[in-house]
Amino acid sequence: MNQQTRYGIVGSGALGGYYGAKLAHVGCDVHFLMRSDLETVRRDGLTVRSKDGDFHLDQVNAHASPEEMGPCDVVLIGLKTTSNAALPALIPPLLGPETALVTLQNGLGNEELLASHFGARRVMGGLCFVCLNRIAPGVIGHFGHGTLSLGEFKGPPADRTMHLVTDFQRAGIEAKAVQSLITERWRKLVWNIPFNGLGIAAAANVEQVLNDKHLHAAARELMAEVIDAAGRMGYAIRLDFIDFQIERSWPMGAYRSSSQIDYEAGREVEVEAIWGEPLRQGRAAGAITPQLELLYALLKRLAGKR
Amino acid sequence: MNQQTRYGIVGSGALGGYYGAKLAHVGCDVHFLMRSDLETVRRDGLTVRSKDGDFHLDQVNAHASPEEMGPCDVVLIGLKTTSNAALPALIPPLLGPETALVTLQNGLGNEELLASHFGARRVMGGLCFVCLNRIAPGVIGHFGHGTLSLGEFKGPPADRTMHLVTDFQRAGIEAKAVQSLITERWRKLVWNIPFNGLGIAAAANVEQVLNDKHLHAAARELMAEVIDAAGRMGYAIRLDFIDFQIERSWPMGAYRSSSQIDYEAGREVEVEAIWGEPLRQGRAAGAITPQLELLYALLKRLAGKR
Repeated sequence: MNQQTRYGIVGSGALGGYYGAKLAHVGCDVHFLMRSDLETVRRDGLTVRSKDGDFHLDQVNAHASPEEMGPCDVVLIGLKTTSNAALPALIPPLLGPETALVTLQNGLGNEELLASHFGARRVMGGLCFVCLNRIAPGVIGHFGHGTLSLGEFKGPPADRTMHLVTDFQRAGIEAKAVQSLITERWRKLVWNIPFNGLGIAAAANVEQVLNDKHLHAAARELMAEVIDAAGRMGYAIRLDFIDFQIERSWPMGAYRSSSQIDYEAGREVEVEAIWGEPLRQGRAAGAITPQLELLYALLKRLAGKR
Repeated sequence: MNQQTRYGIVGSGALGGYYGAKLAHVGCDVHFLMRSDLETVRRDGLTVRSKDGDFHLDQVNAHASPEEMGPCDVVLIGLKTTSNAALPALIPPLLGPETALVTLQNGLGNEELLASHFGARRVMGGLCFVCLNRIAPGVIGHFGHGTLSLGEFKGPPADRTMHLVTDFQRAGIEAKAVQSLITERWRKLVWNIPFNGLGIAAAANVEQVLNDKHLHAAARELMAEVIDAAGRMGYAIRLDFIDFQIERSWPMGAYRSSSQIDYEAGREVEVEAIWGEPLRQGRAAGAITPQLELLYALLKRLAGKR
């Protein structure tokens, strides 16, 4: 991977659009698979309105189908996980012999899904800590953060991991390689499972959870359950990570998670990736997760009944 | 207690009004403490529209204050538990040397509250299995059931228990005495805690809970937690009571609990009596109740934020 790396973006919503645009803006060869925004972007280009400075791409390689896009060296997957059923059909035309598939999606199970269809060797992943939304067709808003933790599905960082990190860094993204991608996914879930979940089920933002004695206790208990599940899966997380996560949450104030925002706006919620898959994996490994079970049951019902 | 027993009704909403009217209808000496319905009932009397046949009381002893009502032999307490803070001021004018205080209220903690103020010796309780609502001032609707399980707060049924049962039976109520009132309260909670709670938190009626694999599992798990808590408090309930409760729930169909109806109508929910007090009592006795803790936290927040 270098300046000539051919990047494909699958799921060119806010997430894929943002990271792809950042790479394209510094001259990388980036190809976007688009549907609803296709005509607008072909005509007007792609705009990012960012807290780090706005920019506009006049010429964008926007494709209507994976066949039109063709093989890429790196495919960045930004699809919402609730659309994962589309991946087995979207990916094959993008594959060359060495194509890396990098899921930037939320939660657990995405690497496994890609591995089951295309082989574990191709699979990488990234954890995005970023606040984005789609303002209009072809216009992406970037409101905060933006760091990216990249890793191999199986094993420590490889040459391709470091090349990807370097490309993102050149594009102005705070990117780093992580030793154990799936451990990092569990660490992120330690926060997302309680705060995104209680956000929906209790209609409470971060400071409302923290300031409510009983919700606060439930958030800590849920964190302990997730850490137990991760540990039984072989991803050790120390219990004092709970205090660390609570402490880093206070400055967030009235922050609402993306799941809560999606739910309250009537959009799909990634219930399986964030709650269902960790629950199933943990339970299969012998974890005791009663609060996660109840929370998952409530969220599945609440998000599913609309 | 006999035909000359002087009954006082505190909390003359649908519950107190219905049981008081049934007693008055067969000639018992019943006195109602009333507030919002006082003038209407003094002028027009009290009407019960019942699946068992409508009836009307032309002359009703409706009182504006406990002082005006004066000492009674039996005080039936039908207040919503969310108004329990009013009891210490309402009860004293009603007390004679032998006055029995009979709480017909939901959940746990009501007998203990009365005992702490007025002595355990006076305290009795009743579990009402009945569907009622207040149709209009002075008009009560009775839609289903009506059985009453009466018992002593401390100890087995006494003479006064049997007299009360007899008076209710004469009034056409299916009443019986129970050996252990608080065991019966816990047995009722085995159903109310999951079904009233999930009804609110998941916006699901009885058959929706039963038909949802994950909510159904959560309902059973919550029942097991409640049985564990009851057992540690000394009120033994067999675990096969769970299957029994699930089986008897199927015929209820789309039934919504009174708590769910109250919540969805924007009225107060008896969160402390039904969830908070059992949780606290069970935890103090060493019970492990993680799902009840999460459910309580959610309900307290959901019911409290309106």
